[in-house]
Amino acid sequence: MAQDLPLNKENILDAAEQVLRRYGPDKTSVVDVARVLQVSHGTLYRHFASKSALREAVTERWLERSITAPLETIANQAGGSSSGRLRLWLETLIRSKRTYSVDDSEMFAMYAAVTLEAVEMITVHVDRLIQQVAQIVEEGIKSKEFKSGSSSEGVAKAIFIATSRFHHPSHAYEWVEEKTNEEFDAVFNLILSGITKSS
Amino acid sequence: MAQDLPLNKENILDAAEQVLRRYGPDKTSVVDVARVLQVSHGTLYRHFASKSALREAVTERWLERSITAPLETIANQAGGSSSGRLRLWLETLIRSKRTYSVDDSEMFAMYAAVTLEAVEMITVHVDRLIQQVAQIVEEGIKSKEFKSGSSSEGVAKAIFIATSRFHHPSHAYEWVEEKTNEEFDAVFNLILSGITKSS
Repeated sequence: MAQDLPLNKENILDAAEQVLRRYGPDKTSVVDVARVLQVSHGTLYRHFASKSALREAVTERWLERSITAPLETIANQAGGSSSGRLRLWLETLIRSKRTYSVDDSEMFAMYAAVTLEAVEMITVHVDRLIQQVAQIVEEGIKSKEFKSGSSSEGVAKAIFIATSRFHHPSHAYEWVEEKTNEEFDAVFNLILSGITKSS
Repeated sequence: MAQDLPLNKENILDAAEQVLRRYGPDKTSVVDVARVLQVSHGTLYRHFASKSALREAVTERWLERSITAPLETIANQAGGSSSGRLRLWLETLIRSKRTYSVDDSEMFAMYAAVTLEAVEMITVHVDRLIQQVAQIVEEGIKSKEFKSGSSSEGVAKAIFIATSRFHHPSHAYEWVEEKTNEEFDAVFNLILSGITKSS
């Protein structure tokens, strides 16, 4: 069946994701994926030059589908307060990461490993998320809910970094603790009193 | 020579630190430390029941000496602005961590590993640091430089967590980047506008 599919990037990534989930990132090679696709490994190496390129591409697609796209919908929402939207955006990011770290632990572990290696891809991913936050901040400045003065992108970056404890994969081992929600409240309130216009 | 020393906790930790630095945390056993001290390992096991207890105790002493004590001096300083003292305290914490991660990389690697395991000891360490920040915040509230209203300890905890990116050992791999200073500026300004009284 597999050999009937055209060999495009999506098919390769589907097969690679399937193999990576089954054997784990350390044990999966380009050859394993070629076998599932019933193509020669030479053919597959033309698409992905190395095991790490394959892992990076699978993680990139997973991040786009699981994290970036759903958050984009929130950033684009109209109506409601900007602080409410900012909180929803952050809570959705944090809840997604926490859920995937448990329910999709193979992909999450691979993402955590790739974060330490594929600096360029992760930087692009993080920049897209910061752009979404900047959009929310920008709206808040326009509606005079948030203070003007600093660049919305600079503020968005600071907000993203200041909440690392709750969404950066290196902190995943700390997310199980009950007090995490309380700690997020404290950090969110600190951020909010930093950006909200005092009336 | 070693057998002339009384076998107290400090001597054991000195020997353990020396052995850990030489062989690395993974390869050091309680037996290796006993050999350096020229005592039986039975004797040493009465003081430290396991390899991990030994690592934890060495890390605890190292954190106290290298991080907590110097920061306490800053927290206790009188005079100057509270925002200035807060910034100095955070910058000293961040610079120390960054320096040790390079210049004392064996101890730093052990500390990073222990952070994932010795939750209790690390919690006590972090709580002491947060108390120091709370003291600085408290002074700032008293002098009317900082807003009153929230508990100084809650604010201190939020500040500590919001700066994790710059001092939590899991982020050490990101500290080499040049942009870290700029990012700290952005986060510190966000924090400061959250706590400073608008005049």
